[in-house]
Amino acid sequence: MADTVSEIKDAKLATVKMAALTTETKNNALEAMAEAIKVHRAEILAANAEDVAEAEGKIPSEILKRLRLNEDKVSDMVESILGVRNLKDPVGETMDGTVLDDGLTLYQIRCPIGLIGVIFEARPEVVPQIMSLCLKSGNAIAFKGGSEAKRSNRVLFDILREAVSSAGVPPEAFVLMETREDISEILKMDEYIDLLIPRGSYGFVKYIQSNTHIPVLGHSAGVCHVYVDSDADLLKAFDVVLDSKIQYPAACNAAEKLLVNEKIAPYFLPRMMDLFVQNGVEARIEKGLEKYLVGFDVKFADEEDWFAEYDDLVIAVKTVKDVNEAISFINSHGSHHTETIVTENKETQKEFVRWVDSADVFINASTRFADGFRFGKGAEVGISTNRIHARGPMGMEGLMIYKYVLCGNGHVVKDYAGKNAKKYKHLHTDSKYGE
Amino acid sequence: MADTVSEIKDAKLATVKMAALTTETKNNALEAMAEAIKVHRAEILAANAEDVAEAEGKIPSEILKRLRLNEDKVSDMVESILGVRNLKDPVGETMDGTVLDDGLTLYQIRCPIGLIGVIFEARPEVVPQIMSLCLKSGNAIAFKGGSEAKRSNRVLFDILREAVSSAGVPPEAFVLMETREDISEILKMDEYIDLLIPRGSYGFVKYIQSNTHIPVLGHSAGVCHVYVDSDADLLKAFDVVLDSKIQYPAACNAAEKLLVNEKIAPYFLPRMMDLFVQNGVEARIEKGLEKYLVGFDVKFADEEDWFAEYDDLVIAVKTVKDVNEAISFINSHGSHHTETIVTENKETQKEFVRWVDSADVFINASTRFADGFRFGKGAEVGISTNRIHARGPMGMEGLMIYKYVLCGNGHVVKDYAGKNAKKYKHLHTDSKYGE
Repeated sequence: MADTVSEIKDAKLATVKMAALTTETKNNALEAMAEAIKVHRAEILAANAEDVAEAEGKIPSEILKRLRLNEDKVSDMVESILGVRNLKDPVGETMDGTVLDDGLTLYQIRCPIGLIGVIFEARPEVVPQIMSLCLKSGNAIAFKGGSEAKRSNRVLFDILREAVSSAGVPPEAFVLMETREDISEILKMDEYIDLLIPRGSYGFVKYIQSNTHIPVLGHSAGVCHVYVDSDADLLKAFDVVLDSKIQYPAACNAAEKLLVNEKIAPYFLPRMMDLFVQNGVEARIEKGLEKYLVGFDVKFADEEDWFAEYDDLVIAVKTVKDVNEAISFINSHGSHHTETIVTENKETQKEFVRWVDSADVFINASTRFADGFRFGKGAEVGISTNRIHARGPMGMEGLMIYKYVLCGNGHVVKDYAGKNAKKYKHLHTDSKYGE
Repeated sequence: MADTVSEIKDAKLATVKMAALTTETKNNALEAMAEAIKVHRAEILAANAEDVAEAEGKIPSEILKRLRLNEDKVSDMVESILGVRNLKDPVGETMDGTVLDDGLTLYQIRCPIGLIGVIFEARPEVVPQIMSLCLKSGNAIAFKGGSEAKRSNRVLFDILREAVSSAGVPPEAFVLMETREDISEILKMDEYIDLLIPRGSYGFVKYIQSNTHIPVLGHSAGVCHVYVDSDADLLKAFDVVLDSKIQYPAACNAAEKLLVNEKIAPYFLPRMMDLFVQNGVEARIEKGLEKYLVGFDVKFADEEDWFAEYDDLVIAVKTVKDVNEAISFINSHGSHHTETIVTENKETQKEFVRWVDSADVFINASTRFADGFRFGKGAEVGISTNRIHARGPMGMEGLMIYKYVLCGNGHVVKDYAGKNAKKYKHLHTDSKYGE
């Protein structure tokens, strides 16, 4: 543990070197990472097989599935690293420029945050994925993986750190923590760790948030809604509701609630219910809706259902008077993650977007689009329901901050103060720092 | 206290209304705020006079100076509110657009953070300043001011809340807390308060950061450096060093350390010392430099001086071998706030910018330029040495986040998965949401 603390201090010291790496060095290191995974494929699978053998029967099958690597998953790791290699280097990019006065120009320059702590559960793919993103974005990283994946994580980490080191990247910028005590230790290291990204269950993220003063980026619950308006195109509505629920029910962006405008409920609900039944979805309905569902074996929702995240083929269904009631319900019962409206009415669409307080607010599209890859971010660092820094699906931009660079020629503030003060120009410039 | 908690819960509920206010309503409310301050000028000054009378002799004269209002400061409040009225409304701005596929476009839309907690010490101007910025940016706000300014804050707050309410802004979005217990209460309200901005001393900001799980934006110490390189234009160097130190020594962006390249020390230091003496600056020098300062009454720096924030007419002076030693010293001894290099050498400038890990890195310009107004932000919310969300001088953008709006036409994810999957286009678009 003393070791972990000193390793983290060293990683923090290495952040300055990481921030100053050239694009070429970083890309060479990413190629070395991809190559190393290919070369050590058998070793990785062997370590993972040991983890799986030990975990079998002790952890839920869903988690075991995430833990287990195979040839395809290893190939995906290689592809994903090369994908990050092809992303644009964000470090040093001029985000904005302002001419304060003649010869005095201010630039806002993108730079890495520093040392990122990533705490994750079973999936070993997180190691290459986050390591490649942190490297490309010039960040140092301290990992803590789930103990059930300890051999897989260690082998991957050692191989990758060796690879980046051979390309001239400081290896001390990468730390893997292995014991449960390490977690409580790193939660206290707010002087060294600049940002924590926990990836795992709601309870896990919540625990991290409540036990550290380090900023945390992550998402808590994923209680997503679909609202079908009276002006909906019903064919689109059936598609969007179904896809939002069944395309991958365990995902945080799967819909858990269906709100239906009461005007269309009599003819919308029976057909929707047919589709739910055909697709193995259990609908828990608001009391009173059974009158539209004659012949169905109905199940009623109780108060808890309106707040529940099922992560399963279950959906709670209720009617609302209008879009305003839908908005109020979503804002007071949801998790501010992802909500969608199905309507052809442009004014209603606008109201929904204006008033719904969620990271992702969609119109006539499945909630399942809320994802870094689908959003075109190249790679996903995570999904955030935070309200500062980054919200919604987060790509490499979630790992970046900026510094201000002011280029002058001996300029002093006293010339701009008091009597006969010079005036600032404050003109936007498209020029880039260093050009 | 139970009252404070329920007021804060109400303010949180009002965030959705605040986010949806039109620009017209907000601008009308800002005009009403300015008018109200003019109308109630005498009342404000009377309340302040009572605060000053009670505080006199009990608080340091510097703080008493900040507490005391006068006609000019009240006029400045009016001007500052009207200045915010003239700023562009950031809410609803399209920050980015991506065509995911035909008829499926993603927009990133700027929106307020929610409920901002501002904790500040003596200065009553913070009430109108932050209230106008939060209003324009669509945020709700909970204030806690210093007890020495309690009457001034209460009068200003009541007048301003009444004014915004008359213009159609929900008054429950604004809360003023008055007791010391309120602070410990709000530090626990991470479910309701989205961001805390403490404004005050280093110790004060540090205390807040260490006692809450709410994200905190602020700056801790301001230990700023000027490095005078061997390729410096010495006339610029004298000006920049002097302005950085004396233009307003109590500010967090005043220079506390002077690093001088050893090659120029023999002829730079005596003249610099002359200027320090002429301007009442006490220089604490590194041992060994006295040989260049024959005839001066020298004072030596001890180890603590290299980390100290004086906020006064004191500066610690040392030599370094080259820009690299300057960079290492700054990164290991500074507070990552503001540093400047004086040099004509473009390569050395680049090295300094690339390696110095501070919010503001300047070239041939006084550290005192590190300020929201000078940077052209219109108004300053504060200066941040955080490494996420906002860094350096923060304008209204520090109070903003975004949501993603995806506009589709019945699009579902299953069409983009599995065999015969459609491909995403991921093309940048300059179109704006709602156009």
